[in-house]
Amino acid sequence: MPRELKANPNVVEMEYAVRGPIPQRAAELRREGRRIIPCNIGNPQALGQAPLTFPRQVMALLEQPDRLGLERRRAEAGAEGAYPLDAVDRAAEMLARLETGLGAYTESAGPAFVREAVAAFIDRRDRGGEDFVPADPDSIFITDGASEAVKRVLEILIAGPEDGVMIPIPQYPLYSAVIRRCGGRQVGYYPDEDRGWTLEREELDRAWEEAVAAGTRLKAIVVINPGNPTGAVLPESSVREVIDFAEEHDLVVIADEVYQDNTYGRPFVSFARVLGRRPVPLCSLHSVSKGFFGECGRRGGYLEVRNPPALAGTRTTFGELLIKQASVSLCSNTAGQAMVELMVRPPAPGDPSHERFAAERDHVLGELAAKAGRLKEAFAEMEGVSCPGEIGAMYLFPRLGVLPEGTGDFEYCLRLLEETGLCTVNGAGFGQAPGTHHLRIAFLPPSELLEEVLPHWVEMHRSYLAAGHKVRG
Amino acid sequence: MPRELKANPNVVEMEYAVRGPIPQRAAELRREGRRIIPCNIGNPQALGQAPLTFPRQVMALLEQPDRLGLERRRAEAGAEGAYPLDAVDRAAEMLARLETGLGAYTESAGPAFVREAVAAFIDRRDRGGEDFVPADPDSIFITDGASEAVKRVLEILIAGPEDGVMIPIPQYPLYSAVIRRCGGRQVGYYPDEDRGWTLEREELDRAWEEAVAAGTRLKAIVVINPGNPTGAVLPESSVREVIDFAEEHDLVVIADEVYQDNTYGRPFVSFARVLGRRPVPLCSLHSVSKGFFGECGRRGGYLEVRNPPALAGTRTTFGELLIKQASVSLCSNTAGQAMVELMVRPPAPGDPSHERFAAERDHVLGELAAKAGRLKEAFAEMEGVSCPGEIGAMYLFPRLGVLPEGTGDFEYCLRLLEETGLCTVNGAGFGQAPGTHHLRIAFLPPSELLEEVLPHWVEMHRSYLAAGHKVRG
Repeated sequence: MPRELKANPNVVEMEYAVRGPIPQRAAELRREGRRIIPCNIGNPQALGQAPLTFPRQVMALLEQPDRLGLERRRAEAGAEGAYPLDAVDRAAEMLARLETGLGAYTESAGPAFVREAVAAFIDRRDRGGEDFVPADPDSIFITDGASEAVKRVLEILIAGPEDGVMIPIPQYPLYSAVIRRCGGRQVGYYPDEDRGWTLEREELDRAWEEAVAAGTRLKAIVVINPGNPTGAVLPESSVREVIDFAEEHDLVVIADEVYQDNTYGRPFVSFARVLGRRPVPLCSLHSVSKGFFGECGRRGGYLEVRNPPALAGTRTTFGELLIKQASVSLCSNTAGQAMVELMVRPPAPGDPSHERFAAERDHVLGELAAKAGRLKEAFAEMEGVSCPGEIGAMYLFPRLGVLPEGTGDFEYCLRLLEETGLCTVNGAGFGQAPGTHHLRIAFLPPSELLEEVLPHWVEMHRSYLAAGHKVRG
Repeated sequence: MPRELKANPNVVEMEYAVRGPIPQRAAELRREGRRIIPCNIGNPQALGQAPLTFPRQVMALLEQPDRLGLERRRAEAGAEGAYPLDAVDRAAEMLARLETGLGAYTESAGPAFVREAVAAFIDRRDRGGEDFVPADPDSIFITDGASEAVKRVLEILIAGPEDGVMIPIPQYPLYSAVIRRCGGRQVGYYPDEDRGWTLEREELDRAWEEAVAAGTRLKAIVVINPGNPTGAVLPESSVREVIDFAEEHDLVVIADEVYQDNTYGRPFVSFARVLGRRPVPLCSLHSVSKGFFGECGRRGGYLEVRNPPALAGTRTTFGELLIKQASVSLCSNTAGQAMVELMVRPPAPGDPSHERFAAERDHVLGELAAKAGRLKEAFAEMEGVSCPGEIGAMYLFPRLGVLPEGTGDFEYCLRLLEETGLCTVNGAGFGQAPGTHHLRIAFLPPSELLEEVLPHWVEMHRSYLAAGHKVRG
């Protein structure tokens, strides 16, 4: 037998709780025939959310350029099951601009017309800000989901073991995993749970000072807005505060804005909008996986860079490095690219598909808000569970304020899984203030299923707490 | 303005010639309105190769589960433009097994039914080998193209700056780029050009001894078969020799077999088949981008692991690390996964789509062989150009045996681009024996275009050589 091989310790030690021990136990139970409700991950279509009609029609048409003529004739004739004419037109336009169809490698950064559509979307979203700066298609990179963009940016920024990146605690564990893999240092800052997870300047300063005192060279600050796992939606003042902070300390801002459509009636304020003409480097991310598309499996997303940082000791630019990284993988997947285009350029009012598209959008978002509300009602029945504030993103992150002595949120989530089939992720998977306990639940299960399972959770909570000596966390 | 930022030197110094300076110049010329023929990259559909009908039909149907009933009725009624019934059946079966459709994240390693189909494909291919060992679906990982699999395996194997990976010279620059990015050492071995790029044991020993003498800890050996850029197809004896060598020196074999369908009538001998029951760790790769599918843009591929190496100092297994890496990106793109399934399970004889599928396959492969032959004829007219041996993969790698003094293959390829629009990659982009000059050309342009452009290349070659004092390389 071959000798043992020493593997890269950064890969060995990397952790990723969203698919960690609790989801793994859930997979075991599922193989044994148990019904599992996968709320450990924001994966709407796995929980019955239907794909939107218009984007899927265009995707189907893109697969078969040689059918476009037939489908146009059928559309014009109003044949049974014919596609709407604007879907046929869009597919024809995209194929004309793509030239080579879905089967060819594209430019490394993604096709120009997709990047142009993204820039137009950003401009529509942010126009009206004080110092509006239009987006530049050449600073936009289409990626296999936002995760890939995060990996690329952090891989460039982390140049040595003293390099640090500030991340919120709790955080989406992609960040801790990638920082670990790149051999850098994770520097946590704690949004204020008691004020609805708002960012406080003193806390940013505290985290910065401690890190610098420990010899850390801080490169960037990550902000997730709306928050994952917290669901918090930042007000403009907080966004501005982060930009001020980054400017003072020469940090790149990494703005994870993949939940920008999940604010349920409240305004979303982008970092790009607040940034305006200020020279702070900004990398912002968006994705087709969330919002009301929920097209997670496509792996489609984009990265927009503003004020790319100058690099020491090389004539290569930050953008050139991003292109080179993309080149090694040749390009992101074309179906994901197409879905990005469809996300940023939905049917316009007056188009044949607009009404149906808008109705589907409103239905998805309305359902999500209603389900979050129903979960919060159930939490109110559970001793010691608090979940203040508005809803955002696709998650609730309730605090488990009372637990039996000697247990933590991991044991709680495992018990919840075994008793109800609800698969969640315990707070430790995201990081949390020492001594506190939480869990994250994606508010995605169909309403009927929620209604059925919530009474069992409430009962499980009661019996779980009754089984030991209760302690406040 | 912010201070300069120190970027990761491994990313700054990484090189990737396939999208390097010559293709960049080509992009400039294209923007100026010149006709460019992109032979720098194996991207068949960018050069007019039509996608295969059956896989695209199934892909279109997968996009719209709610149309399946309608399309089945139309198929049964033989309506105008109806899909063949086996395409409808396949889409229905895949959707039933996928459960959540194309829009949801799948298992990190890819859906079980796709991994099972890959295992069955490998077994069909390799059954009949002396010590046949069936493939295990749990050792198969569906990835965003084979490139992603290479990155993951090398990222695990390279644990420190002394760790080295043996790669053939010339090589596909993905390998040199990823080794550089992971901070490891590239150890080149030279297949014997004069014997049709065969592998010689003495050369493997020479490379190993030199590396070990330099303090390198060798972890793996990469073999690309059929070869990229050389097109060489290895005989069984060479495959066995590499396995012997890896066993003696405790190396992981990384077998890049993405061109396994591009042997043009000669047999393909897989590493897994020759490996049989021997305990050598093997990572083998395949992709939907090459062969006769040419679906590069989908980013679909797979990695099969046999005899995963035991890891020192951890209870984690090699397979668990691969799953964890995949988990951080959640999963590979679902359209690419579906295309992998369609590649490994084509229509069977007797199925309605079989005849058309087989005809399209034979047409694509026949055209590729004919175009390679036509290029070789043209090379015979060029002074000093040699390109011996059979054809394989999608590339020819002719040697430029005579060049004007003071020039190299880079200047030659640049001139070729400027004069004819043919975009190739010079040999230095892949590595080559010192003092030799080559270029790689993908034999993909449509025949009429080749016929038109080849006389210009022959003429350019003549005038290029006439312009200086000729030197043999």
